[in-house]
Amino acid sequence: MIQGTLFQIDSETPWEDLGNGIKRQIYGYDDHIMLVKAQFDAEAVGTLHEHHHSQVTYVESGVFEMTIGKEIRTIRKGDGYYIPPHEIHGCVCLEPGMLLDVFSPLREDFL
Amino acid sequence: MIQGTLFQIDSETPWEDLGNGIKRQIYGYDDHIMLVKAQFDAEAVGTLHEHHHSQVTYVESGVFEMTIGKEIRTIRKGDGYYIPPHEIHGCVCLEPGMLLDVFSPLREDFL
Repeated sequence: MIQGTLFQIDSETPWEDLGNGIKRQIYGYDDHIMLVKAQFDAEAVGTLHEHHHSQVTYVESGVFEMTIGKEIRTIRKGDGYYIPPHEIHGCVCLEPGMLLDVFSPLREDFL
Repeated sequence: MIQGTLFQIDSETPWEDLGNGIKRQIYGYDDHIMLVKAQFDAEAVGTLHEHHHSQVTYVESGVFEMTIGKEIRTIRKGDGYYIPPHEIHGCVCLEPGMLLDVFSPLREDFL
């Protein structure tokens, strides 16, 4: 699997409405990596879950209460986090904003 | 190799000055993935280069003229791109801003 275009332009990229105040755009990917933009309304909840992928995230905007394993922190624009494979994680959106989630390998379940 | 902390807080994360108007912060990583923030002054140049890693990037702010292989596009906040392994790429910063570069596997040369 591979992204069909080298460039992803915000205004040309469809949003997928996931319900409950969360929507996402799929950006660059191949078998090894995938970048996803996830927009959260205030009070939207990313329920606790785990997956075999490594994940790195950047807070592009907003404020989130983020849980990773036993750690809970309030993070905001400019911060980020790392999620080891199979570590349970989730978030609550305190102020509307966007997370940039990047996975390795590809999240085939998103396509 | 693995990032020692689950959370990366902007104000607590050191900047590495790469010279020529570019500096970076290392965010989350393990052997499979690495997220890097790269801040560009206006007119700073990311010289053409290639590497074996897959790369996905998000434009966090600013405007860039980006070259990937034979494609050249002007991209700005909210856009992104995908770079296949060994594809030649580089950029010129048109308005100061930040790129979020994510690699798979780890960029050991950045540590």
